[in-house]
Amino acid sequence: NHVLVLGYGDLTEPILEELASKAPYVVITRDTERARILSDRDVDVFTADPSDAESLQRARVDTARAVVVATNNDAEDALAILTARQLNPEVRIVAAASNRENVDKLKRAGADTVISPTTLGGHLMAESALGGDSERVEQKVMEEKPSKEHPVDEEGDGAEASGGADPDGGSEPGDR
Amino acid sequence: NHVLVLGYGDLTEPILEELASKAPYVVITRDTERARILSDRDVDVFTADPSDAESLQRARVDTARAVVVATNNDAEDALAILTARQLNPEVRIVAAASNRENVDKLKRAGADTVISPTTLGGHLMAESALGGDSERVEQKVMEEKPSKEHPVDEEGDGAEASGGADPDGGSEPGDR
Ligand SMILES: [Ca+2]
Ligand SMILES: [Ca+2]
Repeated sequence: NHVLVLGYGDLTEPILEELASKAPYVVITRDTERARILSDRDVDVFTADPSDAESLQRARVDTARAVVVATNNDAEDALAILTARQLNPEVRIVAAASNRENVDKLKRAGADTVISPTTLGGHLMAESALGGDSERVEQKVMEEKPSKEHPVDEEGDGAEASGGADPDGGSEPGDR
Repeated sequence: NHVLVLGYGDLTEPILEELASKAPYVVITRDTERARILSDRDVDVFTADPSDAESLQRARVDTARAVVVATNNDAEDALAILTARQLNPEVRIVAAASNRENVDKLKRAGADTVISPTTLGGHLMAESALGGDSERVEQKVMEEKPSKEHPVDEEGDGAEASGGADPDGGSEPGDR
């Protein structure tokens, strides 16, 4: 029931911080120096290619609760996603597209959710520049409790995605 | 009443897209090739140092509605913020920290709001991995209307920032 973190990039430390108190995790990175640093911090780490099937099997992708793919190289991310999806058709895979034009490609590779930090950041900045209260929105996002039954509260206006509750069918904790 | 965009980085295109239909904007970048590309797209652009006082004066920082600072170099961002703040003590300045450890420094330089796309992205990814409905949260953020009187609707739980409405004193459209 662990989270498998494939590769190491700019997003990895924020991800590990968020996971720290909430779920056990294992990092796979090819970067031996980075692996040593993580290991010194008592992080479970495999020094291996995160798109290599054998590495993912050793890290028990078959029993993982989720796979997080976030290097700064979207091509490497795509390969890692393809490998993970092949080895575990059911596991939840979450990825980040460094180049926002790769969001759909990473989804087609098998990721359930793909985030574009630049799109998100650009949106918040423009909103804030135009007088929206982006800091409050950001704070709100940051304070969402991941394990809550209803991570976003109901709201009464049209700002919500069309469709009913839980439009993307996001899995609940413990599904897998 | 224009928005001044200082520098050009990964976040700039998403920012310009968001601004496009909502406010006039002017870009200042030292990158002559980038300036040419933007100019070919009919974007108002000055090829100049975005931390140079004279450039900012030419681009009318004194009458700007907001200043957006988002290169991939936080040190350059800090200089640009310091210049803009000196020339216009009242203007709203929004910045992005490429390295999240620079958030506070950019605030001290004079930015009103500083966003960390990696912190935000890492948070959303971890949340999604643990079964939270991060896509819905991301969608919600993306669909916030910047010009609405109440950009985030009231909610009944404890996930909100402490304090009353509008805790960061964000300016309303048309304030300046
Ligand atoms: Ca990536
Ligand atoms: Ca920056």
